[in-house]
Amino acid sequence: MNIACGIEYDGTSYRGFQRQPESHGATVQGTLEAAIARICGEPAVVTGAGRTDAGVHASGQVVHFRIQSHLTPTVWVRALNAVLPNTVAVRWAKEVPDRFHARFSALSRSYRYTIWNDSAPTALHALYSYHYGRPLDVELMQEACSLLVGRKDFGAFGHSPDDSNPKRPGPHSCVRTMLEARCLREGSRRLVYCDFTADAFLTGQVRRMVGTLLLVGQKRLCLEEFATIVQRAEKTHPGSAAPPHGLCLVRVEYPEKFGVTNDDEDI
Amino acid sequence: MNIACGIEYDGTSYRGFQRQPESHGATVQGTLEAAIARICGEPAVVTGAGRTDAGVHASGQVVHFRIQSHLTPTVWVRALNAVLPNTVAVRWAKEVPDRFHARFSALSRSYRYTIWNDSAPTALHALYSYHYGRPLDVELMQEACSLLVGRKDFGAFGHSPDDSNPKRPGPHSCVRTMLEARCLREGSRRLVYCDFTADAFLTGQVRRMVGTLLLVGQKRLCLEEFATIVQRAEKTHPGSAAPPHGLCLVRVEYPEKFGVTNDDEDI
Repeated sequence: MNIACGIEYDGTSYRGFQRQPESHGATVQGTLEAAIARICGEPAVVTGAGRTDAGVHASGQVVHFRIQSHLTPTVWVRALNAVLPNTVAVRWAKEVPDRFHARFSALSRSYRYTIWNDSAPTALHALYSYHYGRPLDVELMQEACSLLVGRKDFGAFGHSPDDSNPKRPGPHSCVRTMLEARCLREGSRRLVYCDFTADAFLTGQVRRMVGTLLLVGQKRLCLEEFATIVQRAEKTHPGSAAPPHGLCLVRVEYPEKFGVTNDDEDI
Repeated sequence: MNIACGIEYDGTSYRGFQRQPESHGATVQGTLEAAIARICGEPAVVTGAGRTDAGVHASGQVVHFRIQSHLTPTVWVRALNAVLPNTVAVRWAKEVPDRFHARFSALSRSYRYTIWNDSAPTALHALYSYHYGRPLDVELMQEACSLLVGRKDFGAFGHSPDDSNPKRPGPHSCVRTMLEARCLREGSRRLVYCDFTADAFLTGQVRRMVGTLLLVGQKRLCLEEFATIVQRAEKTHPGSAAPPHGLCLVRVEYPEKFGVTNDDEDI
């Protein structure tokens, strides 16, 4: 059986999604695989749609695993949540066709980066937002975002992960399609969200885009300079990566036939 | 000088607001007092509007302290946030008249209790909501809430704290005035909020009211039974206290002349 699951996790104490040699600390993949083995005594490899970095959260991650055990999806949800630590939750499970692959079948991923933009810090949002004390011109950041939309070489913001995704234009190509990029203020205007949807992202791309957008928001970089950075597609620019704890994988979209799109509007 | 501050805290690892003998673990009051002493070398007693229990959070707590040091409010905010752990944040500070008392001057307190009402748990809301897996009829809970509004003896849900608030009707009276009580679903309907505003609350009152409202929501207690429990004002009923981590002190209101009402609409 091929089982797909919607996964939510608090990445604070994980070394990222992808399994690492044990000496490097816990990973979300390793935690899920251990839980599956504990439930049915059968080893399984868990594949995620997005291989989030250490400290990055997810409200809408999708994974799949192939398994002999004939447990129903409802039993999988209950059993996994019973053995998982409370930093990882299984939101739903579904039996999917054998050809479904959480990473390779995905049409798009959506990430939200949350900035707490106030001179005073926050305690209740501290684990899930980046405290940025200086004023930000979010309208300028939004204008810069519009320069990110489309099919482009995003080499300015990351590198292509070493993998075998058959959909990639080439093994080391940094060309991706940005479907949506926006910055907005919400709530009492202290929360700033940077939302991105693309077919796929380079390693570190969202955090480096946010780091560079923060320079635009402070007017340390003008829109023309930002456009040049995007166009040159070289990592020789002043933008550095924003810290991981502000980042959350919120949604993964699949062809409708699979019926497994994961979207969490609460988070 | 008399300094008032708006305080936000993640109560997860605190033994409540009020200072305890050290062997009992860290408290928010103790943490704030240590920070003040570290900044100006002068001991100060911090008084909070609400003495929240162990594990309870606050987005809108108000405190005051009297101090000789002549630091400006802006400097207090910056200095306190620089030395406080990231589980306690000072949102604002203000010099207030000597007669201002964070507890005794308060006109009302507002608490929000957050329930994650879904068969599957949550990871990202786990620290700040109570996971309740069975279906809840929130409209019935809302009807029960309307029975809580008004000036009443709330002895069914708590006991009067041992203190000297001069505004109390009597030293052990459980009579308080509930100004607002409501239950509502939000987001993708998995989050249920129970919001209460009163002149003051009994010790444990909100958590016991929520515990009893949860029985109404499950139809294990009908509205007539709930009304009888409220009216009898005796703690001999099936409702138990909901766990502390779902509770948050969100707002404290003062007479307008003080200009210190703390309200956090982001949380």
